[in-house]
Amino acid sequence: MKVIKTVEEMQNWSETVQLRGETVGLVPTMGYFHQGHLGLMETAKAMCDHLVVSLFVNPTQFGENEDLDAYPMDLDRDFKLAEEKGASVVFAPQREEIYPAGFQTSVALASLPLHLCGLNRPVHFGGVATVVTKLFNIVRPEVAVFGAKDFQQLQVIRQLVKDLNFNIRIVGNPIVREADGLAMSSRNVYLSPGERASGLSLSRSLELAEGLIKEGEKDAAILRAKVTDLILGFDHTAIDYVTLCDPETLADVDHVTGPVLVALAVKVGTTRLIDNRVIDPAQ
Amino acid sequence: MKVIKTVEEMQNWSETVQLRGETVGLVPTMGYFHQGHLGLMETAKAMCDHLVVSLFVNPTQFGENEDLDAYPMDLDRDFKLAEEKGASVVFAPQREEIYPAGFQTSVALASLPLHLCGLNRPVHFGGVATVVTKLFNIVRPEVAVFGAKDFQQLQVIRQLVKDLNFNIRIVGNPIVREADGLAMSSRNVYLSPGERASGLSLSRSLELAEGLIKEGEKDAAILRAKVTDLILGFDHTAIDYVTLCDPETLADVDHVTGPVLVALAVKVGTTRLIDNRVIDPAQ
Repeated sequence: MKVIKTVEEMQNWSETVQLRGETVGLVPTMGYFHQGHLGLMETAKAMCDHLVVSLFVNPTQFGENEDLDAYPMDLDRDFKLAEEKGASVVFAPQREEIYPAGFQTSVALASLPLHLCGLNRPVHFGGVATVVTKLFNIVRPEVAVFGAKDFQQLQVIRQLVKDLNFNIRIVGNPIVREADGLAMSSRNVYLSPGERASGLSLSRSLELAEGLIKEGEKDAAILRAKVTDLILGFDHTAIDYVTLCDPETLADVDHVTGPVLVALAVKVGTTRLIDNRVIDPAQ
Repeated sequence: MKVIKTVEEMQNWSETVQLRGETVGLVPTMGYFHQGHLGLMETAKAMCDHLVVSLFVNPTQFGENEDLDAYPMDLDRDFKLAEEKGASVVFAPQREEIYPAGFQTSVALASLPLHLCGLNRPVHFGGVATVVTKLFNIVRPEVAVFGAKDFQQLQVIRQLVKDLNFNIRIVGNPIVREADGLAMSSRNVYLSPGERASGLSLSRSLELAEGLIKEGEKDAAILRAKVTDLILGFDHTAIDYVTLCDPETLADVDHVTGPVLVALAVKVGTTRLIDNRVIDPAQ
């Protein structure tokens, strides 16, 4: 497995393998791998001749008071895990390689960011859209795999690919969970034992919502209230949002008439956790 | 020569020729070809196995009171001229093919548009950056050729390519002029005979500026005043801007200490003409 640090070397590597007719699957990450990342790698590797894992903690998707400088990192462990998953390349550039002096171009979406995490993280999805556009041009993959835990991110990237005409197949991988239901996240390492127990409030409340919707509850306000009550029944929890929305447009729904995305963001202590589930009342 | 109307067919065509190891040179245009466009085509054709000419009057780069609906068009003539220049493909999509319902992604630059034409055309360069990003992903050229008459556009595209890591060589072609000096433009057809004569004020004033700078005049305010006087000495003229600026950053200069871009935008009757010249006092 090669570790590549420069844009030029990465572009040359992709061009070389693609001129041989070989395909490239990209898994963009910010590192500190857990089972969720490894699942993305397995999916990409199964679909393509080559797996390329990018590892870059993208500063432009963090807000001013967010955890950019504290974001967990363990490069040696990550390189080893990517190699075990059969990666051909880990692309791990320095910050100045991606954002050199004079950098001034950004990619933005008009409506998808105006929901869910975008409301409290106003710069986040512009940063994601810009760095993903760059990574697509640097790696030129046939396939790119993203996790469904960042559901809004996945929708933003699907729309970006469609709007900017990237000839890349976007694959969404299901959320990977701990045995007790907590969605895997690099940020889970921040949780104290007591907070770790309260982290379960997210998956539990999604199960509650699913049960209620399948029993026929259609009123989004009632569903939100019950989900909110369950979460606040755990210690250390504060709600950022509890939203029922259209899985395509992310527009809020008042009544559940078809598949609905239930999406949560909850602060547990100082750690912000997200989780979601698409629930189809007809299934 | 093929005329391609859909994104999918265009992408497939490029993929097919590139898998054979053949290179593609793109000339993005809004049609109604003149000698300037034909020169761009000659440059691209000389550098690549295939010339692809895109022909799309991009609505997002026109402001509300600009001439989108009146923009001159003659598709049959354009196809014939592109074929004569050896084009393999003219890519001529309909508007809905490029901006389908739900389109919401845009590409923007932070500083280069805050100069020259960007000041009076606030949406223009965002529209250019977005459509060029799309065209690059649709055609995936090795080389793209743009005219130096739209000097700011050329700088915007160079910066965009660098910032978003497009692996595309951008070539700027010199301005092509009528025998009397008027820079070629599709908009020249709007000019009445009297206005056509006044259109010469642009190239004449650039000659004046060059002469003064080479004689040692360094004061931008004096140079601007002399250029302005010359232009306003012609009938039907109104000045949009007369600017001396850094050719890289487009930031205004007060004193000429090295190569300087003299850039003009002048309304002649109701037609807005632009012209420019990079002048090096040392040469």
